[in-house]
Amino acid sequence: MASPNPSTAFPTLRTPRGAIPADAPRWNPQRPGAMPHHRYRPAHERVALPPLPDRTWPARRIERAPLWVPVDLRDGNQALAEPMDTARKRRMFDLLVAMGFKEIEAGYPSASRTDFDFIRHLVDSDAVPDDVTISVFTPARPDLIDRTMASVEGLPRTLVHLYTATAPTWRDVVLNRSRHEVHELIRDAATHLLRRADQRPRSDIRFEFSPEVFNLTEPDFVLEVCDGLTELWDASPDRPVVHNLPATVEIATPNVYADQIEYMHRHLARRDSVILSVHPHNDRGTGAACAELAVLAGAQRVEGCLFGNGERTGNVDLVTLALNLYTQGVNPMIDLSDIDAVREVVEHCNRLPVHLRHPYGGDLVHTAFSGTHQDAIAKGMAQHAKQAAELGLPVEEAPWAVPYLPIDPRDIGRTYEAVIRINSQSGKGGIAHLLRTHHGVDLPPAMRPDFSRAVQDVTDSTGRELSPGELWELFHATYLAPALAGPLTLVSWSAEEPAPGEHRFTSTVRDADGREHACLGTGDGPLSAFADALTAVGVTAEVLGHTEDSAAAYVQCRVNGITRWGAGSAPTASVHALLSAVNRALRPGT
Amino acid sequence: MASPNPSTAFPTLRTPRGAIPADAPRWNPQRPGAMPHHRYRPAHERVALPPLPDRTWPARRIERAPLWVPVDLRDGNQALAEPMDTARKRRMFDLLVAMGFKEIEAGYPSASRTDFDFIRHLVDSDAVPDDVTISVFTPARPDLIDRTMASVEGLPRTLVHLYTATAPTWRDVVLNRSRHEVHELIRDAATHLLRRADQRPRSDIRFEFSPEVFNLTEPDFVLEVCDGLTELWDASPDRPVVHNLPATVEIATPNVYADQIEYMHRHLARRDSVILSVHPHNDRGTGAACAELAVLAGAQRVEGCLFGNGERTGNVDLVTLALNLYTQGVNPMIDLSDIDAVREVVEHCNRLPVHLRHPYGGDLVHTAFSGTHQDAIAKGMAQHAKQAAELGLPVEEAPWAVPYLPIDPRDIGRTYEAVIRINSQSGKGGIAHLLRTHHGVDLPPAMRPDFSRAVQDVTDSTGRELSPGELWELFHATYLAPALAGPLTLVSWSAEEPAPGEHRFTSTVRDADGREHACLGTGDGPLSAFADALTAVGVTAEVLGHTEDSAAAYVQCRVNGITRWGAGSAPTASVHALLSAVNRALRPGT
Repeated sequence: MASPNPSTAFPTLRTPRGAIPADAPRWNPQRPGAMPHHRYRPAHERVALPPLPDRTWPARRIERAPLWVPVDLRDGNQALAEPMDTARKRRMFDLLVAMGFKEIEAGYPSASRTDFDFIRHLVDSDAVPDDVTISVFTPARPDLIDRTMASVEGLPRTLVHLYTATAPTWRDVVLNRSRHEVHELIRDAATHLLRRADQRPRSDIRFEFSPEVFNLTEPDFVLEVCDGLTELWDASPDRPVVHNLPATVEIATPNVYADQIEYMHRHLARRDSVILSVHPHNDRGTGAACAELAVLAGAQRVEGCLFGNGERTGNVDLVTLALNLYTQGVNPMIDLSDIDAVREVVEHCNRLPVHLRHPYGGDLVHTAFSGTHQDAIAKGMAQHAKQAAELGLPVEEAPWAVPYLPIDPRDIGRTYEAVIRINSQSGKGGIAHLLRTHHGVDLPPAMRPDFSRAVQDVTDSTGRELSPGELWELFHATYLAPALAGPLTLVSWSAEEPAPGEHRFTSTVRDADGREHACLGTGDGPLSAFADALTAVGVTAEVLGHTEDSAAAYVQCRVNGITRWGAGSAPTASVHALLSAVNRALRPGT
Repeated sequence: MASPNPSTAFPTLRTPRGAIPADAPRWNPQRPGAMPHHRYRPAHERVALPPLPDRTWPARRIERAPLWVPVDLRDGNQALAEPMDTARKRRMFDLLVAMGFKEIEAGYPSASRTDFDFIRHLVDSDAVPDDVTISVFTPARPDLIDRTMASVEGLPRTLVHLYTATAPTWRDVVLNRSRHEVHELIRDAATHLLRRADQRPRSDIRFEFSPEVFNLTEPDFVLEVCDGLTELWDASPDRPVVHNLPATVEIATPNVYADQIEYMHRHLARRDSVILSVHPHNDRGTGAACAELAVLAGAQRVEGCLFGNGERTGNVDLVTLALNLYTQGVNPMIDLSDIDAVREVVEHCNRLPVHLRHPYGGDLVHTAFSGTHQDAIAKGMAQHAKQAAELGLPVEEAPWAVPYLPIDPRDIGRTYEAVIRINSQSGKGGIAHLLRTHHGVDLPPAMRPDFSRAVQDVTDSTGRELSPGELWELFHATYLAPALAGPLTLVSWSAEEPAPGEHRFTSTVRDADGREHACLGTGDGPLSAFADALTAVGVTAEVLGHTEDSAAAYVQCRVNGITRWGAGSAPTASVHALLSAVNRALRPGT
């Protein structure tokens, strides 16, 4: 091992202001990996990226929801080890309708009997509401188009979604066709489809085209093919065509996809007759960003799946995208007010779990374990309640700005139960919050560090989480029980105020040996009178602090030089709180 | 339910070219949700976003890896229901060192005894290699700074990471301090820290500052605080300070964070003495995009966790970021050549699973179930092998461009076993690929649709996946077994070529009733002679196609007007293949 060398451990930077020059010295001190990165080429060497120095998307904002199109029943279903059967598909379909989706890709009817049968099932059982459009996916092959059209016979409205891979590698290696031949293949299939649609004048049949692997396809070829179809299908503003431009496999940082989409947005012919759609995948973990930046760049429609199911790393997650808009104050246009109900159906149908940290829907995403976060959340919730009262609004309608909670869990059907959970990383704020919300015990701020230490002693030793119930038990054992456990116990007592401001405390106290003592004291309040009375059993107690709430009284005492907190429950709360503090101080070893 | 209305089902678009106007008519037909989106404000109303019309990041590319700093042992650990014990922490630490990380945030020593003890464990067991720097996290409070400094006593190099929340809501609600008071609090703590560091002249102690919730903090306040610390700590190019600008909770699309970072990159004082660091979280599912766009915008250092552990939705995932660079041909500077070994340690330490669709590391992310994807992958793999041969390179060193596989699974220690899996969504390409790679059986292209139908009959009926072994059994039962199962069986046979090009086939064939027939035939090859011989048992068989590979022979026959494929294994492959096709055709009901 080399000797310590600060210039290795701490990179020296010489980055000038402004853009970082490409030829800047390598300042990353981490070791070169043994992995053969030279096997891969960057995106700009794999595809002609459109020049877009005047791009407008980085300065734009999303102010309305795009048209969401769930493809769970097609693209998502194609990615399952065990594809959905008809019952599962129907459950998913009904969920999508209930959530408010108006266009639903329901299958790939030429791919399997199961897919075909499900489309027939939808038609035959009259399952499609009047305001919902079904789309079906088909390759650009006449026999498969015919099979697809057979599946939707009887539907009043259908979107037929034709696709062909257009990127060079796919043309060369998979289709073994030239650019010109691929274009012909698409045009022939689109013509065949148009003819079949024309044979059903009573159905409203419209068209979508996906140049698969759009993001690796030459922009001029995409325009050539898409514009050709816009014309062939005679799209108009009242009868637009959908051009869906998929990031079939993510290939670059999401700004590159945004540039590609803005270029198409600007150059597609008959733009007012085209719905520009995107279909991002998540291979680089940036599917949601691709969708959002694409919408900034002009996309009007987004295909994706609930919780991001789909081939490999999945399709973009429509739940995340919708709630991302929601938390910016934009109407998401779909109903996610019971996210766990949605999740339950999705998990059932896909037989895949939603991860604990999945945005919005994961089990842990509204939970804080760390002390500082808990403290901030507890204060934020209190501030929220206060602000709601000031505005005269119910808390569930008041503006939401609680630290570390980007969404009010209640808006998506969750409770606050899981927001704060206690372990060794937690702090006084969170602990106090849980005692208050679960047990009505509002620890005085000055007492919180004391109980926090007691909690951490347990969590540090066990390494485990403490439930609200366990927290309460610990509070009880620490502060409430000592009043009854000795060494001193109160046999009987009475307090009186013979003159204004003059208090007298009369009691019988049993000591650790079982002997009873008559103890009498006076003071400017009952507590100080009780403290005074304890001098009869050799205890010098000084009340340093005292608060009460509806659940308990909390007393801080200096007892024979030792400071302790105690608590007591009604009806004799403060007396027991003082006695608890005294007994805690008198115990050996504390 | 409303009557069918095409203008409801199909949105009418009137979007002009160029930017989409903010006041465009609402074209989204989806129903307004009942959810109270009006409770939330967009990011630009919550924080003063820096004007950046001349932003440069959208046109830039990432050409080298930033400095990666894993915070699994601190930020990640704070988010676990059961925080790591010392053994788990040590296992994580050793993994991070082995992967090649040079700066590791090892804990929050003032937060708990467990955290403190672990830092002491690292010091006392001499666990920190000479080229690795430990960082420790501390709030800006003198007593906690002292506790932090006590934990690292004896370490030759330390980065002390001071943080304070600086955003207005946090100042007002959590800290209850004015902007000026927060600045003073930070400066006082930083001065205290500097003094403590100066008391250890033999240790190389450097500083990091995080204005927590940077992304909701006024830019001028961030500059005021950070520049003040740069000066106070006397940063220089040889002894830079780290300013870490976290997206503590994601608040907007990732381009907004990029703008915020580029603004800081341009305006931070003594820029050559500052390492600009980012720390993205994933609340909106765009943590990876935030990190990447921030690096484009000038960030030089990224804090995150392996597989994205961390509070709520997690920190940005360093595995994804590193492999995103890798698949662009950029050296990731850390070793991920055995991703499953990394995952195993991470899952053990965090006691949380990595999701099946997690980029790069999930179980399903290199798998294709859909037929078209499988076909493309199979062709792409063949093309890859061919290209490698042409270049004279081993396949594992040849440039990688296989469709639907953004990374060669072998580069991260995986096999091709799981790349293609067969169910009802699968097609002939994938099935042929599995038979070839697992059993050496190279189905002729013309035969593939036939076997594909046989596979789909099974997968459609059962709804389940077929393993490569089950696929082979089905192939055997469909094409190999019929040669031996009758109705016709060969009792004995011989083939000869009495003159060039003239073949004779002599055989005894047993029919379904057990009767034996002497069958003699001639032809221009042994197969056509065998076909001719079968006329003796009333079979008119015409060989339509015939290929062989090292594993089997494949024969397509028209038998009494019915076309069938058959297959046979060596040594009498083609004869059995023909007989199989004949028997399949003769079976009732097929």
